[in-house]
Parts: sequence; C-alpha cells; structure tokens
Amino acid sequence: MVDLINMPQNKNCIGTLIYALQELSLKAERMSQEDRFICFGMVEKEKKMERLQQQMEFIAEVDKLKQIQRQSYLTDGIRKENDAEHSWHLAMMAVFLSEYAKEQVDVLHVISMVLIHDLVEIDAGDTYAYDTEGNKSKREREEKAAERIFHLLPEDQAEKLWELWEEFEENETPEANFANALDRIQPILLNHKSDGKAWEEHQVQLSQILGRNANIEKGAPKLWEYAMESLIKPNIGKAIIDK
Amino acid sequence: MVDLINMPQNKNCIGTLIYALQELSLKAERMSQEDRFICFGMVEKEKKMERLQQQMEFIAEVDKLKQIQRQSYLTDGIRKENDAEHSWHLAMMAVFLSEYAKEQVDVLHVISMVLIHDLVEIDAGDTYAYDTEGNKSKREREEKAAERIFHLLPEDQAEKLWELWEEFEENETPEANFANALDRIQPILLNHKSDGKAWEEHQVQLSQILGRNANIEKGAPKLWEYAMESLIKPNIGKAIIDK
Repeated sequence: MVDLINMPQNKNCIGTLIYALQELSLKAERMSQEDRFICFGMVEKEKKMERLQQQMEFIAEVDKLKQIQRQSYLTDGIRKENDAEHSWHLAMMAVFLSEYAKEQVDVLHVISMVLIHDLVEIDAGDTYAYDTEGNKSKREREEKAAERIFHLLPEDQAEKLWELWEEFEENETPEANFANALDRIQPILLNHKSDGKAWEEHQVQLSQILGRNANIEKGAPKLWEYAMESLIKPNIGKAIIDK
Repeated sequence: MVDLINMPQNKNCIGTLIYALQELSLKAERMSQEDRFICFGMVEKEKKMERLQQQMEFIAEVDKLKQIQRQSYLTDGIRKENDAEHSWHLAMMAVFLSEYAKEQVDVLHVISMVLIHDLVEIDAGDTYAYDTEGNKSKREREEKAAERIFHLLPEDQAEKLWELWEEFEENETPEANFANALDRIQPILLNHKSDGKAWEEHQVQLSQILGRNANIEKGAPKLWEYAMESLIKPNIGKAIIDK
C-alpha cells in the first residue's frame, strides 16, 4: 500500500492524491514479473467471473419463458402449453426430422434458433397466429423486449443472439426456413392430437391455415404434404371451418 | 389383373391360387421398364411415408414429457417445473455456456443429449436426486421405458437415440460430462433463485449437495466454482442444512 502515514506534511487534498498516485506508479515500476502476473491474473479472473455472472443472470431470467402461455393444447387437451415446452418440442423435431429440410441445413444452427425464437415473448407476450390486431404491434413490442433481454448477456453473445433471432424472423436462409416450418407444423400436430380444441376455440378457417402455413412448404415440403394429408384434412368441416 | 374368369375349369382351391400366382409372375416379367419404375416408386414413397408417420408418432408421444413434474421450483417459486421445460433450459445453457466445458465439446451432441436425457421419465417418472429408495429401482424402470418409447422411431433413429441416452447415463465422454454438469447446476440455480424452497421442502443437507454435485466439477470446473460461491454458500445454514 501507499505509505500515507509517512507522507510529507502540509499537503492539501489534491496534493495528497498526486503523492499517492506517484507512489503507486513507482511501486508498479518496481513490481516483479511474478507480481505483475498475479495482479493481471486477478483482473482477468474478475472479468471472467463478471462474464459468467452476466450469463447466469440471463439463464435465470429466461426461466420466465416457462410462464408464457400459448394457444395450443398439449396432445391430451388438458392444458395449454407454454413457450419453453414449445421450444423444446421444436428442438426435438429439428433433431429427428432434419432429413425433411428442403435444403441441407446446419442442425445446430436450426436448434439454436428454435430454442431462442420466442424469448422476446417474456416481455411482449404470445400473439396468437390468427390475431390480426395483435400482430400489427407485434414487431415493435418484440424489438423492445429483445433490447432488454438479449443485453443481459455479454456483448458478443448478445449480438449473436440478436442475429439469430433476426435470421429466424426474416426467414430467408435454409436454416430459418426449416425452423419456421417446424414452428408452424408443431401446433398443427398438437391441434390434431387434441381433437382440434384450439382450432374450435378460435373458430379457425381452412383458408387461414392454408395462408399461414405456406411457410411449411417453403422449409419442408414433405412435412407440408404430411400435415395436409394426415393432420389438416381429417379435421376439415369438423374442428376447422371449411371456407 | 389375373384373368380368373377364363381360368381352366375343375381346379380346386389350392389349384386356383397356384394358377393366379403363375399368371402374376408372367405379368411381372412382361412389365415394361417404365411400369416397374412406377411400381417401385410407389413402394418407395409408401416406405417414406411410413418412416415419417413413425417419426411423427414419436414426436407426438414425447409431448407427455411436459407433464412429468420435477422437484425444482421455477425461479419465482410459484410452481414446480416439468421435464420438458428443464430440458429446454439445459439446451439453452449448452448454447450459451459451452465455453466452460472442461474439454472442448461438440455442442450439437451436448444439446441432443440434454434434449432427450429425461424422455424415459414419461413412463418411469421423475426420481428426486436425494430419494435413496427410488434411485435403487431407477435404472430398471428407465430401461423398460426406453425400450417402448425409443422404438416408436424407425430402427436407425431408435438405435442412435439409445446410444445417446446411454452416453449421458455413463457420463464418460467430454460431451456427457458437460451435459451432466448442466443437469446438476440448473436445479441449483433454480433453488437459489426461489429462496431454496425445494431444498427446504426436502430438508437437504450440504453433504448431500456436495456428494451429488461433484459431477459439475468433472464436466465444468468453472461452473462448479461459481455454483459453490454464488448459489450454494449463501444458502448454507438457511435453506441448506449445514451438515
């Protein structure tokens, strides 16, 4: 430490500060190589702990995704699913159905995208696919949410996360096409398995489903064919209104 | 079709069958190259649809993971989390914390493992980490579950899934070490954030936590250091019994 007890007397406040700084810089010059390593090592370690602290705060914060309710019912129709469950289900589909992607895809990239694609809903809430009004303000609400949530992470990861989310939203790359296809087919599967409960609740029309789900064909034509034949057609005129 | 109207008279039942088979084999021989392609193409297509059908049944079946309740509370302490939410949370940790794996890991492999590691609990149920009795019969119950659930998939994928689950359970590869570390640290994070609610409920002792969680150090020593300092120590003598 700087020796403030034996410092020259009669110094004023600024003088004390200057003296202390001079002493410190002299000490730094005299510091052995080993001492320097220890000193820098500690700074490095603190930085790393700060990075990890930020990452863990983000991991704890995204726990809230488990409380964002969606409109689809679980296959048994007892309750609606939440965003975290939905995201897990999409990731499972990415693992086991990647052979049906229209173009060859980087599966890790697809999974990363589906895992994070709904994080903004922690603040912005879930907007039902066929809610015309809600979908108008969706983008603005979601960008604000991304700004807050993504930036809990260290800057480099926040940037990558933002890029990943944007890629999913823009739906232009093969990976985003496939991820979006999965995001559309999963609720259709749940709806079919739960006897079209959510379709009935929202009085969904066939034209709405066809309009919205052209995206499945864009990313996974074989899955679209399957969805049409096995999941949608059996419900037309029943849970799905035929117009 | 085989011409059964003009078939020789006075044949018995077996004779009719033999005649029909002979006629069919002659027709197959006379089949043009093009006809054969159409014929095989249809078989191929049917096989593919059957494969997809199996995969989709598996995807629908694993929806049940959303109903397997665990012992950890969500960060806000209002309700306990389920296996699907937990698996999603681990996958998120794999994406954002892979830099802390003890050895370099294939992140896609780690994520695939954490996504599927609890599937067997659909039949076998969740066994609480500190339930000594339940843990005795765990392996047997889980193997039976794997046999049923994994084999909903086409054979090649069922085998890969079994290998992946075994790898997680055996905890010998760098990927399994890291996946297991995440599986241990996540409930500690949730417990800390929910004021140790689940620890208190189960009267968990520090020695139990330390014994069980040595696995975190094996796969991610930096995360263990963090967990000890920031998540466990602040709760000793409070939610965690100090013995």
